[in-house]
Amino acid sequence: MTYEGYKTFNAKLEDSILTITFNFGSVNLQGLEMISDLNSLAMRLERDHEVKVVIFQSANPEIWVCHYDTNLLKDLSTKAVSRSEVELLDLQKVLDRISKLPQATIAKLEGFARGGGHEFALACDMRFAARGKYKFMQMEVAMGILPCGGGASRMARQTGLGRALEIILSARDFGADEAEAYGTINKALEPDEIDDYVKNLAQRIARFPAESINACKRAVYESIDQPIEEALKAEAYWLYQSTSKTAAIKRFTIADEQGLQHDIDNQRNWDDLVMKVQDIN
Amino acid sequence: MTYEGYKTFNAKLEDSILTITFNFGSVNLQGLEMISDLNSLAMRLERDHEVKVVIFQSANPEIWVCHYDTNLLKDLSTKAVSRSEVELLDLQKVLDRISKLPQATIAKLEGFARGGGHEFALACDMRFAARGKYKFMQMEVAMGILPCGGGASRMARQTGLGRALEIILSARDFGADEAEAYGTINKALEPDEIDDYVKNLAQRIARFPAESINACKRAVYESIDQPIEEALKAEAYWLYQSTSKTAAIKRFTIADEQGLQHDIDNQRNWDDLVMKVQDIN
Amino acid sequence: MTYEGYKTFNAKLEDSILTITFNFGSVNLQGLEMISDLNSLAMRLERDHEVKVVIFQSANPEIWVCHYDTNLLKDLSTKAVSRSEVELLDLQKVLDRISKLPQATIAKLEGFARGGGHEFALACDMRFAARGKYKFMQMEVAMGILPCGGGASRMARQTGLGRALEIILSARDFGADEAEAYGTINKALEPDEIDDYVKNLAQRIARFPAESINACKRAVYESIDQPIEEALKAEAYWLYQSTSKTAAIKRFTIADEQGLQHDIDNQRNWDDLVMKVQDIN
Repeated sequence: MTYEGYKTFNAKLEDSILTITFNFGSVNLQGLEMISDLNSLAMRLERDHEVKVVIFQSANPEIWVCHYDTNLLKDLSTKAVSRSEVELLDLQKVLDRISKLPQATIAKLEGFARGGGHEFALACDMRFAARGKYKFMQMEVAMGILPCGGGASRMARQTGLGRALEIILSARDFGADEAEAYGTINKALEPDEIDDYVKNLAQRIARFPAESINACKRAVYESIDQPIEEALKAEAYWLYQSTSKTAAIKRFTIADEQGLQHDIDNQRNWDDLVMKVQDIN
Repeated sequence: MTYEGYKTFNAKLEDSILTITFNFGSVNLQGLEMISDLNSLAMRLERDHEVKVVIFQSANPEIWVCHYDTNLLKDLSTKAVSRSEVELLDLQKVLDRISKLPQATIAKLEGFARGGGHEFALACDMRFAARGKYKFMQMEVAMGILPCGGGASRMARQTGLGRALEIILSARDFGADEAEAYGTINKALEPDEIDDYVKNLAQRIARFPAESINACKRAVYESIDQPIEEALKAEAYWLYQSTSKTAAIKRFTIADEQGLQHDIDNQRNWDDLVMKVQDIN
Repeated sequence: MTYEGYKTFNAKLEDSILTITFNFGSVNLQGLEMISDLNSLAMRLERDHEVKVVIFQSANPEIWVCHYDTNLLKDLSTKAVSRSEVELLDLQKVLDRISKLPQATIAKLEGFARGGGHEFALACDMRFAARGKYKFMQMEVAMGILPCGGGASRMARQTGLGRALEIILSARDFGADEAEAYGTINKALEPDEIDDYVKNLAQRIARFPAESINACKRAVYESIDQPIEEALKAEAYWLYQSTSKTAAIKRFTIADEQGLQHDIDNQRNWDDLVMKVQDIN
């Protein structure tokens, strides 16, 4: 599959890792062009069994992805809609799609991510941010609305309730260390180490079976949307549903041949063993 | 609207911020008087479209709000009740009301908050605590009961499951730094900085549209009580339901006139921009 | 009740605290023997009203509990199963039972806990880990499956979504400090302090009424599986259902006699008061 013809980013595929680099106008505005591009990208990735990891980064030294185009917001109908009639908004829809991709998705945040830009980051599986360069903000309350690209829904799933409310009600900038402490990002990293950190993580994940990556994602996302009894059933379901029988059995066989089990030396080195077992591919 | 005639606290309204200062007897006991006062306060705030932020603080240098009156607990019926018959307890009811206020609520914790006092803090949107002065504890398990002013229900929504269980099963004091690390409070602050921190935060929020504050709160609280698909719908619902059309469109128009979008200098200063846009009020 | 005859651990009962020490082969393999032992243990503990706290530790200086027996995984049917037909797996079942025990359960982690071993730790109420000795990993994605001993379901209940996904998708070792920062454990402790820390915590909890311990656990676990309205009802239900009337009323009476309420000196010392009130037992 080819990843070409986008207006707001370019895509580079290497060793099952697709790197998306936003580069659109002066500020990487999140408008019709970007939403259209993200929809096209998602449509391809949903059908792609080769790509295992997607990294979202920016060519702009100051901005990762900008907020949602305010011109589109000016035209928004504000007619009240009943609960049963309400439909998802365009930004919600495309970010929901991103969040459900079968690939592992990583937001590599080396500039501002505010409003819809930050909501996009929240729709990725993991977020890493560069100290001194990264800032995030949800400014919607100040503009007379609420974060409605999934931000109001996804924030407390990362941070707990009190910090989610402070972030969304205060409409202020948060830096990388505060973001780490509050839990909106996985880790704050030094600007000169984020590249290697994300690359190593992506390369590690990219060697694992694609079906397992997808099964893990499904089970984890489902787990917090249901009572534990149902979550456990989903976990078992995804085991039976998605396991690549050949891949798993090959791996357990190799593990056995290497005396992985019952051997304390091997138990000390699972971090390496995990990668050795991939050599069967 | 006037906020007068309370026995357990006094209320001061200034610039859309209502500051409630508990001052009742030697320990700010959480008894019939306080619960009655809180119900009256909630009834007014539910109808008040001017107040945007409520700060709860204490005049007592050592105690924020004391635990629930043990004399009321002695009389508690312990007859088993079936699931379908069970009704909310008085403290649960009033704190549920506090938690659903349309205003942003801040607990400014400069003394002890234990038992029902801490459960009250958990029912506020945000919590900030002074190092060296703040302690919290849920002592119910030691008394033969469980935290039943919402504490058992709200703890893991802030901290994750393991830490919630430790807090509730250990019945010990936690200081401000440990509270921050466990996530029961937003931040631990120095005793001489908590005043300014909370004041600045309150003044910032108090300039934003009241309807947006309410919409943000609703969407965030709902988000963790439902699967993501339903949460996203709630988010969209609150956008249509609550947006003050005039307020939002005015703000986006100003933002456009100021070239906020497409301009990197403006993008650098969203922290200030957010406040400039409020000057249209 | 006696706790004897296990193949994979020994059990020592002292002052209402049951200490389980794993000691099975070279690596504490989590195979048929251990699962069988854990089922027997759970069956007894479910009926035991004397034991109030269970500590799980290991006699192996390097391994707490090893991963699930890979030989059992090799035989796993990978036939797809429909959602309605899916049944819980053996490891899921026994860990679900552990997680619902009426006793407070503590994982004292002084060695590796990977795969099913870590999923076992996640099924305990609380987790404390020794710096330098503890490592955890979920390596399933690398083996072609997903964590299906409750790991995919329980991880985000401790850490938030982004960090749960990183843990499960990266299949790498995490040390004690990173585990604390990510929230999979309650606290990282020095190797020479973990013993006392866990002992003190266990002894504290073991003096509280058994029924209250159970009620607290039920209410907290239920709280995150339901909307807040239902969680609050569950909280009230457990108050009526489980309170030992005699225990609670005795305690509140003692508290009153000691002038606990209305007295600032007593309010300063709740940490001790909580224990004094237990002397009535």
